Amino acid sequence: MKREIKFSLVFRDMWQSAGKYVPRVDQLVRVAPAIIEMGCFARVETNGGGFEQVNLLFGENPNKAVREWTKPFHEAGIQTHMLDRALNGLRMSPVPADVRQLFYKVKKAQGTDIARTFCGLNDVRNIAPSIKYAKAAGMISQCSLCITHSPIHTVEYYTNMALELIELGADEICIKDMAGIGRPYSLGQIVGNIKAKYPEIPIQYHSHAGPGFNVASILEVCNAGCDYIDVGMEPLSWGTGHADLLTVQAMLKDAGYKVPEINMEAYMKVRSMVQEFMDDFLGLYISPKNRLMNSLLIGPGLPGGMMGSLMSDLEKNLESINKGRTKNNKPLMTQDQLLIKLFDEVAFVWPRVGYPPLVTPFSQYVKNLALMNVMQMEKGKERWSMIADDIWDMLLGKAGRLPGKLAPELVEKAKAEGREFFEGNPQDNYPDALDKYRKLMNEKQWECGQDDEELFEYAMHPAQYEAYRSGKAKVEFLADVAHRKAEKEEAKKPAPHDAPATIAMPTTPQVMNVDVNGQTYRVTVAFGDTTNAAAPVASQPASAPAAPAAAGNGKEVLSPLEGKFFLVKNASEAAVKVGDTVKEGDVLCYVEAMKTYNAVRAEFGGTVTAICLSPGDAVSEDDVLMTIR
Amino acid sequence: MKREIKFSLVFRDMWQSAGKYVPRVDQLVRVAPAIIEMGCFARVETNGGGFEQVNLLFGENPNKAVREWTKPFHEAGIQTHMLDRALNGLRMSPVPADVRQLFYKVKKAQGTDIARTFCGLNDVRNIAPSIKYAKAAGMISQCSLCITHSPIHTVEYYTNMALELIELGADEICIKDMAGIGRPYSLGQIVGNIKAKYPEIPIQYHSHAGPGFNVASILEVCNAGCDYIDVGMEPLSWGTGHADLLTVQAMLKDAGYKVPEINMEAYMKVRSMVQEFMDDFLGLYISPKNRLMNSLLIGPGLPGGMMGSLMSDLEKNLESINKGRTKNNKPLMTQDQLLIKLFDEVAFVWPRVGYPPLVTPFSQYVKNLALMNVMQMEKGKERWSMIADDIWDMLLGKAGRLPGKLAPELVEKAKAEGREFFEGNPQDNYPDALDKYRKLMNEKQWECGQDDEELFEYAMHPAQYEAYRSGKAKVEFLADVAHRKAEKEEAKKPAPHDAPATIAMPTTPQVMNVDVNGQTYRVTVAFGDTTNAAAPVASQPASAPAAPAAAGNGKEVLSPLEGKFFLVKNASEAAVKVGDTVKEGDVLCYVEAMKTYNAVRAEFGGTVTAICLSPGDAVSEDDVLMTIR
Repeated sequence: MKREIKFSLVFRDMWQSAGKYVPRVDQLVRVAPAIIEMGCFARVETNGGGFEQVNLLFGENPNKAVREWTKPFHEAGIQTHMLDRALNGLRMSPVPADVRQLFYKVKKAQGTDIARTFCGLNDVRNIAPSIKYAKAAGMISQCSLCITHSPIHTVEYYTNMALELIELGADEICIKDMAGIGRPYSLGQIVGNIKAKYPEIPIQYHSHAGPGFNVASILEVCNAGCDYIDVGMEPLSWGTGHADLLTVQAMLKDAGYKVPEINMEAYMKVRSMVQEFMDDFLGLYISPKNRLMNSLLIGPGLPGGMMGSLMSDLEKNLESINKGRTKNNKPLMTQDQLLIKLFDEVAFVWPRVGYPPLVTPFSQYVKNLALMNVMQMEKGKERWSMIADDIWDMLLGKAGRLPGKLAPELVEKAKAEGREFFEGNPQDNYPDALDKYRKLMNEKQWECGQDDEELFEYAMHPAQYEAYRSGKAKVEFLADVAHRKAEKEEAKKPAPHDAPATIAMPTTPQVMNVDVNGQTYRVTVAFGDTTNAAAPVASQPASAPAAPAAAGNGKEVLSPLEGKFFLVKNASEAAVKVGDTVKEGDVLCYVEAMKTYNAVRAEFGGTVTAICLSPGDAVSEDDVLMTIR
Repeated sequence: MKREIKFSLVFRDMWQSAGKYVPRVDQLVRVAPAIIEMGCFARVETNGGGFEQVNLLFGENPNKAVREWTKPFHEAGIQTHMLDRALNGLRMSPVPADVRQLFYKVKKAQGTDIARTFCGLNDVRNIAPSIKYAKAAGMISQCSLCITHSPIHTVEYYTNMALELIELGADEICIKDMAGIGRPYSLGQIVGNIKAKYPEIPIQYHSHAGPGFNVASILEVCNAGCDYIDVGMEPLSWGTGHADLLTVQAMLKDAGYKVPEINMEAYMKVRSMVQEFMDDFLGLYISPKNRLMNSLLIGPGLPGGMMGSLMSDLEKNLESINKGRTKNNKPLMTQDQLLIKLFDEVAFVWPRVGYPPLVTPFSQYVKNLALMNVMQMEKGKERWSMIADDIWDMLLGKAGRLPGKLAPELVEKAKAEGREFFEGNPQDNYPDALDKYRKLMNEKQWECGQDDEELFEYAMHPAQYEAYRSGKAKVEFLADVAHRKAEKEEAKKPAPHDAPATIAMPTTPQVMNVDVNGQTYRVTVAFGDTTNAAAPVASQPASAPAAPAAAGNGKEVLSPLEGKFFLVKNASEAAVKVGDTVKEGDVLCYVEAMKTYNAVRAEFGGTVTAICLSPGDAVSEDDVLMTIR
């Protein structure tokens, strides 16, 4: 008998790699005893990642959810872990240091034992404070190597990164193979190297099934000394999810490892509760395609979970390419030809942007850049002639150090555009903020909560916390669920040919009573808004009425690509208005495409005479966006 | 750099593990050059298994198909292989020795290089003649170990089986992991043991993805010395199919093996042609569920591909169980409870029926027996009180020797029912038949064909060959495609609420001209028949008109289970008619359920006074089938 391998059920990630949401706390506390009864888990991933934010979106208190959901595991002697995005904490943008520090104190108090910290760029500077803060708070600090596959992401690179993290104080190492793209043999080598130097440091392997490597990787890392394996279970295993517990347990048992037995009756109980939660509302946010494996993206190195959005991007762009080709009497391009062109361009782009690990959002950035290059070149324009601001931020080092070197052509381009490279520690750009939020709470007469947990949530997710407190979040969430249910019902029943299906939704603002933490709030919600609830720019100023484009009223600003028109990227920016004076190079507006905001800059100075669209409107390439005189 | 690993594209199995059919020869010859252009295959699986039979069902000549499809690979220096069911040749029932012998001569002449022979029970006696015949015909004889997971299917068992096959003359060994249930470590041990004794014997690993072990198994068998790996490709990889070429190649390359590079442009060409063939007609026969992985059946050991039919069986039987429970005021059973009961019963049944490898049809037999036991016991009857004849044949040794020992209770039951165990060589029950078919062809003035290939096909698939020659097969196939296309179209469009969807099909017999091998035949087809085209009893005698069940007209024969009523299992049997005298124990009729025919035997002698149903009618448990006085 070989040594023991322990399992962790990544219950939080099971849901979030399938769809947008996680179960509600009432559902979680119902399933917890059955998970414990399965008798085979040393650990469970309970929170972190999007968990807390999703609870706010439900209109529920994440602090209550984490406390109630971790409690039964604690009592059963099962360790709980959370996903921590290092500099980004529990969101997608950088978090001030004092908020990060409070984060670990709060989560430890709420019952989370282990902080699994990662930086999407593998910049150790972003991870270092988390080690210190987590340990100071009494948590186990588990630090992650984000696995990608490139000539610079070698066994040596990852080994050195792990050793550096351990030397900085990491208690454990997580091999975070979030696209499942790690190669089994190399992963075994990495684990072997770490264990050779630090045999007592526990290693946990986290992987997704996507391209099909991960079961082999699990065997290899176990053979090399790995201690914990993250698993999923039916009906959410495989595809964009994880390897199934049953497969992993059977494989390791056959290979001679000591593995826990599984109480199959409890397994079936958990399995049917997961299905029940999906049938309740969670399935409304889960694409069945996420259960499929995908190997096609192994070549370009992109995560398989991206296949759906990639194909839809391709479709739209192909249409645009072929419109142009028809006009110029050129032969039409097929979808496969475009797909191959895109793969080749990804292979060209990725090294030149310094090999950021191909994980969200960087995988999107690389794919978008490649597709933008293909499109621009098709139109006879230069490669790199359109780079979104978010992508520039990554290239300039604002999110952390790129693993590889930026191509000289991009360095030059940055300089030519007057963009500055950032060499410092990204954290330094974000001053402490707790005092500000404490003051705000005081003004609003809101309690900072047990262990300052309300203060923490407010500082971590300000807008969403406010929407939760006002009750707006709950109303919008319930309306969205109702809307999707109605759509699903409508899709099921055969509709008469002559009457198009319509969904009954209130069209006038509704006054409703909403229960928030036991208190009843009276809120007014305009249901027309709710269809935009999921849009990234929730508080787009409505103050820019669409003025008709008056011909001859100025020079036209044309849309450089197909997408959605927005005046600002987020609510804190000031929107351009009719009458404003703009100078060459100023950002006029944005065209959102493929989840990035592409700034449209003024090519000439003048006064804005018309804004021809409303925020959120769909635009085609070369549509008139504004006029300037 | 480690040694070289070669790939085989199992193009035939890719289709047949997804659905019923394979592409037509015109499609195959179009895709062959692109497969060659991919530049990474040493071998391609071209035919065997259901390939030849499917061509007959299309109304096409399989001999022409095999010759045209193997030719380009031959010219490109790529070896072709076929699947051979040993005693069962290219069908599901035993084949006379002289037909088996001719089989290899014909296939070698048609351009197939390698015969991959397997016996579903791993009875070497069934494989031995294939080795002799294949080698005499100039083919490479590759013999298979059918992998299943049980206490008696040990590494030692498979090692010994392989050594025995090699000593009998097998040129190569195939590790046939047809349910993907083989455990990676043990498979590596088996390969290592064979290579230790016979390092020069090539080993090819064939596997399906289903439960998720096979990528790990591929790495393990390669590490142990395996030479060839069978792979699939998009859009038919994973799920009930195979590991994807891209994953396997990338994994082995990383592990240091010499592997061929893949021409991705050609890959994309093949990929889109496969999709095109699916869009043409093949997709009409493919369930999208077959792309899903499935780990739930690892416990009971059943192949994951069985999940769909198993859940539908469960649903029907659960209804019947709960009807009974409602009647008796007992609490209702949930589907999960029944599923666990079934899994437990499989665990009980499988050892007792001698551990037949869990592969079609034996996996079905074991599952059906278990479900039947659960149902009978639920009704207060004995375990084993209903065993279908096909299952008895397996238990009695008629298909070959069972790997394990039959339970004493079943041995006794067989004796009590006067059933005889068969200890001899199964082949001995099937006398030579070529002379008979040669004579028949002579009478019909049909040519025996180049290399006697027409004679071979007639002797291998008599009924289907006749249907092909008459043109009936083609008409029925085209009608079925048209029917499914119409259904699909109908399902797509929203129908008015008040008019149920109907599909326009001719209801009167049609006279049509059909092209068969370049000759035009005039055939008459009644389209009403075509909906039964796929039913296993195509020529059910229509001579048993349904007589009304006259009360008091005799004692009633009740249906022992839910299913479909048939008078005979196949056309060569004589059906019971009204007026026939029957004695206790005589087979009266069959109830087909879960793909097996359950004989209904007379519990008393007498004269048949009424047959209450027509062949093919659905029956519920306890429905009156016949009356006997």
